[in-house]
Amino acid sequence: MTTTRERHGLLIVNTGDGKGKTTAALGILTRAWGRGMKVQVFQFIKQSTGNWGEVRALKKMEIPVTTMGGGFTWLSKDLNHDADLARACWQEAAKAILEGDAEIILLYEFTYPMHFGWIPVEEVLDVLRRRPANRHVIITGRNAPPELIEAADLVTEMTKIKHPYDNNIGAQPGIEF
Amino acid sequence: MTTTRERHGLLIVNTGDGKGKTTAALGILTRAWGRGMKVQVFQFIKQSTGNWGEVRALKKMEIPVTTMGGGFTWLSKDLNHDADLARACWQEAAKAILEGDAEIILLYEFTYPMHFGWIPVEEVLDVLRRRPANRHVIITGRNAPPELIEAADLVTEMTKIKHPYDNNIGAQPGIEF
Repeated sequence: MTTTRERHGLLIVNTGDGKGKTTAALGILTRAWGRGMKVQVFQFIKQSTGNWGEVRALKKMEIPVTTMGGGFTWLSKDLNHDADLARACWQEAAKAILEGDAEIILLYEFTYPMHFGWIPVEEVLDVLRRRPANRHVIITGRNAPPELIEAADLVTEMTKIKHPYDNNIGAQPGIEF
Repeated sequence: MTTTRERHGLLIVNTGDGKGKTTAALGILTRAWGRGMKVQVFQFIKQSTGNWGEVRALKKMEIPVTTMGGGFTWLSKDLNHDADLARACWQEAAKAILEGDAEIILLYEFTYPMHFGWIPVEEVLDVLRRRPANRHVIITGRNAPPELIEAADLVTEMTKIKHPYDNNIGAQPGIEF
């Protein structure tokens, strides 16, 4: 058994029902930023106007974020509109993956548009297969499609063991948003 | 069922054999840093001289890190020395938890000295119980003691589903270190 030392662009999937998918992805971006690597974020589903700590942190780190701006799907009254926004965001992301210069690209909450059937998984996998060999791609969200997990190099499932909401403790600023 | 909106300091434990425990903790710190919250790190087990992306990132974010400097336990020839270093680091951490002004304190890889029996879990729980009500504490590492999990508000177990080492792909800079 030998492991290669060469640069190999990983496909990383953080999925599962537990906390920490976004947080773990933010940690990877922070680590890469610490090394001075070029990082880019495409944000699906979640709206961009919130005061989330991660949005502020990405801004402070000067990491470019492209948002689809459609707000939370489960609050939306027009799913077709959200699907169109997600597809438009994916077109930009695909271009960055194939032709951009970021070393690490995060597709934040990107499992949802695939899970909802808005973006065909096969189309995503085709773009990922054709990407430059050293480009890392991170995809987060629940319900990662099985084909995506099959194609991924690193899959972590966050499993909820215990959560403060179980004890009626509200979300804490800085920790959860 | 109502949830409280008041500030409540959480005890967060990231454990399990999968990737992402440190990364998720780094993500929480980054999010809090994005909000301008005061953050402090105590680093157990791992040595401080490495060029890890997270070390560089913490430095760029100007987050204070206290290291025990004992290197990797599994490379150490003098376990008593490591135990002494871990206990000294814990004394400082306990002081910060009880009397310091950080809003979030990360005890990085702190499960190990408890698991090895170097630091009694009951002593740790006693300090945690006596901490200010709004102070968040995050503890990472494998083999979290059951009593710690019992006391925690939020426990996430990172489960390895698939890892690039399985396919003989070496660790990638910026992603894994």
